[in-house]
This record gives sequence, C-alpha cells and structure tokens, in this order.
Amino acid sequence: MTRPAVTLLTDFGPGSEHVGALHAVLAAACPSADRIDLAHDLVAGDIRAGAIVLARLAPLLPTAVHVAVVDPGVGTGRRAAAVALEGGGALVGPDNGLLGPAAAALGATAAVELDPPPEDGPATFHGRDLFAPAAARLLAGAAVVELGAPFDPADLVMPDLPAPRVRDGELVARVVAVDRYGNVQLLAGADDLARAGFTRGDRISATVTDRPHPVTVARAFGDVAEKGMLVHVDSHGHVALAVNGGDAARRTGASPGGSVTLARWPSRPTS
Amino acid sequence: MTRPAVTLLTDFGPGSEHVGALHAVLAAACPSADRIDLAHDLVAGDIRAGAIVLARLAPLLPTAVHVAVVDPGVGTGRRAAAVALEGGGALVGPDNGLLGPAAAALGATAAVELDPPPEDGPATFHGRDLFAPAAARLLAGAAVVELGAPFDPADLVMPDLPAPRVRDGELVARVVAVDRYGNVQLLAGADDLARAGFTRGDRISATVTDRPHPVTVARAFGDVAEKGMLVHVDSHGHVALAVNGGDAARRTGASPGGSVTLARWPSRPTS
Amino acid sequence: MTRPAVTLLTDFGPGSEHVGALHAVLAAACPSADRIDLAHDLVAGDIRAGAIVLARLAPLLPTAVHVAVVDPGVGTGRRAAAVALEGGGALVGPDNGLLGPAAAALGATAAVELDPPPEDGPATFHGRDLFAPAAARLLAGAAVVELGAPFDPADLVMPDLPAPRVRDGELVARVVAVDRYGNVQLLAGADDLARAGFTRGDRISATVTDRPHPVTVARAFGDVAEKGMLVHVDSHGHVALAVNGGDAARRTGASPGGSVTLARWPSRPTS
Repeated sequence: MTRPAVTLLTDFGPGSEHVGALHAVLAAACPSADRIDLAHDLVAGDIRAGAIVLARLAPLLPTAVHVAVVDPGVGTGRRAAAVALEGGGALVGPDNGLLGPAAAALGATAAVELDPPPEDGPATFHGRDLFAPAAARLLAGAAVVELGAPFDPADLVMPDLPAPRVRDGELVARVVAVDRYGNVQLLAGADDLARAGFTRGDRISATVTDRPHPVTVARAFGDVAEKGMLVHVDSHGHVALAVNGGDAARRTGASPGGSVTLARWPSRPTS
Repeated sequence: MTRPAVTLLTDFGPGSEHVGALHAVLAAACPSADRIDLAHDLVAGDIRAGAIVLARLAPLLPTAVHVAVVDPGVGTGRRAAAVALEGGGALVGPDNGLLGPAAAALGATAAVELDPPPEDGPATFHGRDLFAPAAARLLAGAAVVELGAPFDPADLVMPDLPAPRVRDGELVARVVAVDRYGNVQLLAGADDLARAGFTRGDRISATVTDRPHPVTVARAFGDVAEKGMLVHVDSHGHVALAVNGGDAARRTGASPGGSVTLARWPSRPTS
Repeated sequence: MTRPAVTLLTDFGPGSEHVGALHAVLAAACPSADRIDLAHDLVAGDIRAGAIVLARLAPLLPTAVHVAVVDPGVGTGRRAAAVALEGGGALVGPDNGLLGPAAAALGATAAVELDPPPEDGPATFHGRDLFAPAAARLLAGAAVVELGAPFDPADLVMPDLPAPRVRDGELVARVVAVDRYGNVQLLAGADDLARAGFTRGDRISATVTDRPHPVTVARAFGDVAEKGMLVHVDSHGHVALAVNGGDAARRTGASPGGSVTLARWPSRPTS
C-alpha cells in the first residue's frame, strides 16, 4: 500500500509559524502522510512565480495532494478550489491563477469550490483553516467532488504569463524569479532564443534599465570566464541570465516582474 | 498503533545546521517518529514571541513531544525542563518563560528539571546535547518523571506579557511579532478592541512613533482599499495592523517589543 | 527492519524550490525513506563551510545516504562522486572538497565517479538530475560500486583548511562561518587555544581589521557580563567569538573567509 503524500508551496517564508501550522494540521489529521515542502520562499504575493514553480514541481509527484497558498486576496471574493488530476493527485488552494498552470500540466478531471470557513471565524488564514483540512480529507480517501460545488476545470484562473517579444536579433522577456545566487529566470524558452537567432557562443547584450551588459550564449557556467555573464537555458527550460561566480541580478538590476532585453551587438565581436 | 510525533520550535534560523543537528539526533534515536517543524525564524532570543507561538501551535498536536529552544541564557543557571501535559504530550526546553504559556494552554501534570550535560562537555548547544536526547527518551516511551528531579509545574517561568492599556477611544499594546508581509501582531485581543469602543468600519489612528496613521477597523484585507491600512483580529485571535497589498510594519515603523497606540480620530469621518 | 534515511545539505537557500525539487525526487523514488535536512543556508558557493558542517553532522547518522550540493562548478569538469562509508552509509555530491572531510571522519571504503546526465539535457541542476537519483538508487538497495567507475577514495578532493598560526600569546585563524546570532566560528580548536597560552578567565584581544576588541576566555555566554565579548570552544569544538546578548560578527567585522587575531593584552588586567 502506498504512503499518501502531500506537498506544500507557499509564500509564508521558510521556517515561519504559518508553515508550521499547515504541517501541524496535516500531521494531526493524517500521521502516515509524507509531507513534502516544495517552496516557501516565494516573493510575498507573487502568484505568477508560485504558479510556475508549482507547475514544474508538482509533476514530480503526480499522485500527491498539492497544497499551494500564495493568496494576497484571502478573505475577499476569490474562489477556494480543489482540483482532481489525471494522475490521481489533486491541487488545493486559491483559484487566483496559482493553480492554473499546474492543472494544465497535469490534466484536470474535476474542480470544486471549497466552502469558506464560517463567517464568524478568523478571516485571514485559509491555509490552516480551509486548505490544509481539505487536503487532509483527500489524504484520508475523500474524492475532490465530495469537497464542494463542482465547476468546470477549464474555468480555473490562469496567471498573466506574457509571451516574450521576439524578432531577429532581439528577445524581450519578463523576469519570473531571481534566486539566491542572483540567477535571473525569464519567461522565455529555448525556442525563443533560437527564433531570435542566438546560438551557443554568440556574444550578445542584456539590458534591464539603460546600460547593455555583454553576455555570452552558453550551456553552463563554466563555459564563460570567472565573473563572466552568460545567457543559457536553465534546468527548468527557461532562458536565464547568470554570472559565473557572481550575481547577475545585482549586476543588471533585474528583479521579478521587470523585463530584460537580449540583443545582438551592433558589430559582433570576433569571439 | 500511533506514530510518535515530535515538534521543533527554535530561533536557530530556517535551514541552519543547528536545526539540522536536532533533526539528526531525533532521526537517529527514533526513526519512526514524525518530526514537525513549528517555527525556526523567531527573532533571536525573543522568548516572549516564542512562547506565544508555541502556545498556539502545540495544541494542534496535544499528544506530541514539543521541543522548544529560544535560549539566550544557555550555559547559565536557567533551569532545563520537561513538562508532562494532560493530553499525553510533553514540553521540553529551557524554563525561561518559553514553556509557561503552552503549559498553561495544554495543562501541565508534572515537571522535572533535566540534569545538565557533563561540565567538561560543550556548554552552548543544549538543543542537541540535552533537549533532543530528552525528547528522544520520551518518544521511546519514557515518562517525564523519569527524566529528572520533579518540581511544581506551577513554578514554570512565565514570560513578560504586558496587558494592553485600554480606555474608551484608546488602546495601547505591545508588538508581539512582525511577519514577512509586514503584519504587526499586538498583545491584545478582540475584547480589548471592544473595550476601547472600536467596531468594524470605524476609522481610527495607529501611532508607533510620532505620526498617527489612518486605519480602518475591518475583518479582512479586502475590506479596505488597495494600500489601505486596517486593524483586525488576526487568525490567531490577536489585534493586528496590516496593509492591504502592503507592509504595515514598514509604514508605521512598528517592531517587536515596541508599542502601538490605536486611538479614535478627534472627529470621526462620516464614511 | 530499519527505515532508510537520506540527508540533504545544500547552499540552495532554506525554503527554496531547489530544495523542494530534491525532496520531490527522493519522495517519489523512495516514499518510505526518512528525509533529513541538515542545512540549506550555507553561504552560496562556500565549499569549505559546507564540508565542515557535513563532516560534523553526518556522523550523527552513520548509516544514512548523505546528499551534499555546494557546487559552484556544476556543468564544468569537476567529478560527481558517490562514496561508501564504513558505517554502511554513503556520501553523494560533487568531488570539489565538499565530501573530503566527511569521508575522512566516517571512513571511506569505496568511491565512484557518477556518469553525468546526457549532454543534451539541462546542465546546471545536478542535485535534481544526478545526485538525488543516485541517492534514490542507494536507498533502494544498490551498492555505491554499482553507480559508476571506481576511483581511490584517497583521491577525494579536500577543501582548503588552513591551520591557525599559533605562538605564545597569539592565535591567528580563519573564519569558518558566522551564524544568525553573530557567533564567529574559527578554524582552530581547544588545543590551539592552549598552545597560545590562553586559559579560562584571561582577558585577551580579538582583532579583525585594525582595532583590537577586549574579549574574555570563557566557557559559556553567562560567564561574561551582558554585551561582553568572549572567546570559547563552541559546541562543535571550534574556537569561536561571541557576545553575550549581542552580535560578535557585527562588532568586530568578522566574516567567512577572513581572519581573526587573538592576542594577549600588553599588560594583563588583574581580574
């Protein structure tokens, strides 16, 4: 018999009591479940980044119950949802865009709106009071459709994921996230890089504000000199800026929500 | 048969090797136990905040062994304690105020002083060398009274928890904690808000240093405009300041240990 | 039957999705394993500190599989390794110095070079794509020697661990790490303190840049006055600077990689 698994993805902050409360509720209700922390250091309220991270990590555990809480609109009218997935797993969280990409990646077979906690109770911690208890019911064997009123999974909210602007010699893309190494992940993939005509070894420029920075199209950090900047397709399939042994975000000023322009130098250096 | 559970609450910092050492000691001694991280991001040395968080999270797991370490006096004369709880669980940690409120909330049936580690050993990591091993013995079936010399649980140290000063139209309360969203939690509850005569929809002021900030008494973030400040009873029952889509701590300058004054505006706005 | 255990030590940052990805891969491959986070807040790329932390925590779990990833050279020529240990456990990670001290502490019986992931795959997340899958195979019962081409464990890279310079009345040592309390851990032990002629109760000086700070040789924080600075042998056996109720790193300016000079005052105070 398989051990039930539940994952947690929030913007509560690593080591915070809010994360602890989710764990405690789940441990009390389902002691045998394997609880897996996917991420808790998301920028507060950054639904888009949360949705992207959830969509790439949840497929590693297709039969798990995934609880995701990036919920700046808690206590307002946004729908609370549970979604049944093709692989047997489920998503539980606010229907504010956070669940849409993961539902698309894993295939949604049903969705329900969770009843909110009683109006006279606390209004601001649905993670503890609504989502974790719903996940506990799923771990105990309930079906998603038993948890609330059904709605069409096609109506799940999708986050704003602007496509990059690409033309020959130029790619303009939104910053998804900056990690602690200063790597700058963009909303663009290998195809976009190819459409812009950039290939491995090219010396191009990266511009966030006014000043273009020289950058090499590369595969790995070690392909450029120490402190050299590279653009590569990162381990999640995103185009990303990085500095070998340094911090690309600090050097360029890139930050989540902003844009980066990659462009061919007027005259291409001979190498 | 139930799986033994042990929780961890410290000011060691999320992801720190000190937390890792506690986990390693417990995993080695009791591989079957469910280890639950309650919080590790407490302000270093903030016994009061640790005590409050422990008292509200421990009741979610009344049969667990709760190890709590916020211990600025480690290596000095403060007593190391284990406390048996009515629900079958236990508290383990320094008797410096950290355990008192949780013992009161859960009901203490016995308390013992843990013998310190040998004088010639390390003096500064009682979490690893004293508290985690004591918890491991409890997880293995030992009773609290087997772990040391008994003392009256009524003598457990209580932290300084100053009551708010309340009169009609004014509430002055201490800041318990500020979370990563900038929410400012106060040592005051719904009753205090009512005693001050503040009701939902009132426009009042919040003052930390010199300047009063306008704030609305509300239930949820969405009850005020974007970037509007609200005072509400938060999900833990505390009066709290928050900004819808913003950071109340940064706006007001509130920080743990300081005070906030909530007061009626001289003339109450009509809406 | 014992439950398999796997530990994780990285510089990915607490609560990061990179840590979550390792957990997800391991949970999917080996649901019964106990996953233990040893540390994730290491300074990015600080192989030396990672190696020291791994060498002191891994012995707490001698039969576990220890996955360690501090890997600034990922995607370059550094060897990926798995090491069999005398106690039955194993180390898995980059052979860049990170594994050497733990292998020495636990006794290595065999080592293999892991085959890199396919050249056309992602180049920069060996934790998820190489090390965690290798650990999963070990958890499932594979032997280290089945995972790659053997090499002599004596050839495992050791990190640069400069010995302190010690003479009567002076000890100059490298800073290993600074924790969140501002404690400054040095690459020196109790023997070095004794060789310099410093004994408990001595008033000496600690110098990082230009200004010497008064410091007392002590056993515990409580042995000096509030806000007083002490040098002691910490709970890991390292000489360390600390301030009772304060932050020694901030006061002295000490930071990882730098040096601290401990010296006798010209005239020793009478108390």
